[in-house]
Amino acid sequence: MVFVTRQAHFNAAHRLHNPEKSEEWNASTYGKCNYPNWHGHNYIIKVTVAGNPDPETGYVIDLGKLKQIMKDQILDPCDHRNLNLDVPFLKNIIPTSENLVKVFFDQLKDQVEAVASEGSVLYSVELFETERNIAEYCPFKHTIIK
Amino acid sequence: MVFVTRQAHFNAAHRLHNPEKSEEWNASTYGKCNYPNWHGHNYIIKVTVAGNPDPETGYVIDLGKLKQIMKDQILDPCDHRNLNLDVPFLKNIIPTSENLVKVFFDQLKDQVEAVASEGSVLYSVELFETERNIAEYCPFKHTIIK
Amino acid sequence: MVFVTRQAHFNAAHRLHNPEKSEEWNASTYGKCNYPNWHGHNYIIKVTVAGNPDPETGYVIDLGKLKQIMKDQILDPCDHRNLNLDVPFLKNIIPTSENLVKVFFDQLKDQVEAVASEGSVLYSVELFETERNIAEYCPFKHTIIK
Amino acid sequence: MVFVTRQAHFNAAHRLHNPEKSEEWNASTYGKCNYPNWHGHNYIIKVTVAGNPDPETGYVIDLGKLKQIMKDQILDPCDHRNLNLDVPFLKNIIPTSENLVKVFFDQLKDQVEAVASEGSVLYSVELFETERNIAEYCPFKHTIIK
Amino acid sequence: MVFVTRQAHFNAAHRLHNPEKSEEWNASTYGKCNYPNWHGHNYIIKVTVAGNPDPETGYVIDLGKLKQIMKDQILDPCDHRNLNLDVPFLKNIIPTSENLVKVFFDQLKDQVEAVASEGSVLYSVELFETERNIAEYCPFKHTIIK
Amino acid sequence: MVFVTRQAHFNAAHRLHNPEKSEEWNASTYGKCNYPNWHGHNYIIKVTVAGNPDPETGYVIDLGKLKQIMKDQILDPCDHRNLNLDVPFLKNIIPTSENLVKVFFDQLKDQVEAVASEGSVLYSVELFETERNIAEYCPFKHTIIK
Repeated sequence: MVFVTRQAHFNAAHRLHNPEKSEEWNASTYGKCNYPNWHGHNYIIKVTVAGNPDPETGYVIDLGKLKQIMKDQILDPCDHRNLNLDVPFLKNIIPTSENLVKVFFDQLKDQVEAVASEGSVLYSVELFETERNIAEYCPFKHTIIK
Repeated sequence: MVFVTRQAHFNAAHRLHNPEKSEEWNASTYGKCNYPNWHGHNYIIKVTVAGNPDPETGYVIDLGKLKQIMKDQILDPCDHRNLNLDVPFLKNIIPTSENLVKVFFDQLKDQVEAVASEGSVLYSVELFETERNIAEYCPFKHTIIK
Repeated sequence: MVFVTRQAHFNAAHRLHNPEKSEEWNASTYGKCNYPNWHGHNYIIKVTVAGNPDPETGYVIDLGKLKQIMKDQILDPCDHRNLNLDVPFLKNIIPTSENLVKVFFDQLKDQVEAVASEGSVLYSVELFETERNIAEYCPFKHTIIK
Repeated sequence: MVFVTRQAHFNAAHRLHNPEKSEEWNASTYGKCNYPNWHGHNYIIKVTVAGNPDPETGYVIDLGKLKQIMKDQILDPCDHRNLNLDVPFLKNIIPTSENLVKVFFDQLKDQVEAVASEGSVLYSVELFETERNIAEYCPFKHTIIK
Repeated sequence: MVFVTRQAHFNAAHRLHNPEKSEEWNASTYGKCNYPNWHGHNYIIKVTVAGNPDPETGYVIDLGKLKQIMKDQILDPCDHRNLNLDVPFLKNIIPTSENLVKVFFDQLKDQVEAVASEGSVLYSVELFETERNIAEYCPFKHTIIK
Repeated sequence: MVFVTRQAHFNAAHRLHNPEKSEEWNASTYGKCNYPNWHGHNYIIKVTVAGNPDPETGYVIDLGKLKQIMKDQILDPCDHRNLNLDVPFLKNIIPTSENLVKVFFDQLKDQVEAVASEGSVLYSVELFETERNIAEYCPFKHTIIK
């Protein structure tokens, strides 16, 4: 099994805020991430596809095609945008990194698997909010839940 | 001459917009950096002090003290904030990296030189908006202007 | 399944030495890592929690709380310390990266799982002794042992 | 289960070209990666061994020995070489990252497992063609193939 | 004086070889950098412009314009190419990093200064062949030559 | 004027302590850097030579020769050693980064200039104690001292 990863980046504003909760709940839950006038990040996204290399091309996926899908599906809608206000597929999503990776995975899955080698799957989406804060969605890594 | 540098980071939202100009001028000058709902960055700041090490301590400046001054003067006012709306010393400043490094230098100079070794000076402030876009203010590097 | 990772760092001295073995055995087994007067590293630690985001907060774990637990349990006892001499929970442990990640995992597990979202688990601890030498402890990644 | 990783690098030229296909097929499949006069990369390779630390040494594998095996088996044959023309074990391999990681894994497996702790296995080989394009071969991470 | 830097990258093949010298001289002077079938690098280039921010835009130079000039003048001719064979402006140049930065500076100077703020100059070009091997050309940093 | 830089690294233990001062002075001046049982760092050193490329080789300095001089003069004496106890040329030096860069410069100057191109000089030595704490010694960058 071979895993192929493409990394890209975008710069966006956001704010953590649950509109169904009080101001007090939001301030105490999210701290400075809840400040009203937004803050932002240089997000780095890594998208991994798992499969077997095509025998003719030697590719699990043409990284040029993966780059283009990531641009169309994630970077163009999100780059230099406000993740709470501007992105149609993030409507009603609290933009924590945990929630973003799940939505990004769903945005990418069909288009990625359509151009990858026979039998390959979108394996994971990893998002670096900063180099210290990272989230990953991967439906294939199972753990023993308590 | 010894140069000592301390690096720190903060995450903020901003937007490039000159309020004295038309919407058209702003859109065509700043492109996606002018989008109305803000975007943001993980800023990295590097502050450099130049001088001679104190013979008793071996320090040009105690980096613990420099870290604290950077926190008080730059990080606390800017981190998780909107650089256009929230920071008193950035009022009426278009927050390009070029403008930010000059203002940050002025914010730091007196306090840094008060705790550095005899004769040392604040030498430069460098700001990484991303790893690809960088600005530095340094009054000591002279170049031949055309 | 979502994986959330927090990265931190500490600077420490250590030496590889098995006191139950001869000087010759130690010198030939550990080479320059056995030098008597210690050496040191800028350790980077990455702690990963696996689970499902809490529907109200969107968090698998509040990274501010994870940061505080890592500070209390790992960074405060280890930073600027000698891992062979100064850290109570490393007593009688040869401080190879392999041994450190296992002990760090045990130091973190209960406190991390107490504040993570319902059903989440401490998934792995990864330690970078340098960017070239890395160890990870993860009880959930099974491999076929020969 | 503990995972130990060693990172190294080499600089090489290559070109993607399937000699059994037409010039047109190659140009349209590989784009600029098919340019005739070669291009090159600073490759970074990460090799991971999984096992239990030896109780006497605290090592899953002596990283000095792993470094030497990587040098003998991968770096010496590939560094400053042309991956299409110069490397015996890459003969008839289209040097995509996907194909390289599989071959590198086979080159390393026996020698690595001979010096690792009892029961340890070579777990994965990861290759960074650039920081944006990454491939990994790991026979132990299973995924559900469609 | 403010310094603004833009970073970009390209991947290329090259070989160090002085055609006016013997094979023996080349082999002993350049070692593995002289191997006949080429090797390659992920080059990183940093271009710095020095000047005063334009009072209306706050820019020393619009980094979008600088990015485009770097693409036209350096990246498009060099990316995925052979620096000895394919690049018209490198004809008869031995492609050491020292020689490359001087030529790149000359390729960029007029176009960069035409779009930068009044009085600004192209200050330096820095090239990372690897993160360990770096060259910079800067006509403004004077040193005392022996 | 072309500037050529070579980067290397070493891992060492140290402690900040002025033996001519009291324990109280040392504890209050150096804080945790004064802890008695040492701590350590992965030091990164960057050495820069300034000059004109030799017309026959295209080199300001053969980086292979610079690498060897750095190994002989700095890395072999310092790597996996205690900077306070083990290094002859650091005897009686308080190992702050400021003091280290000055001593390292003196250790390198004659040997570097002997193999660099005609008229070249050792320009600077930069030392990263961590990525956040950096010192540089450069006798050619003059600043206006107050």
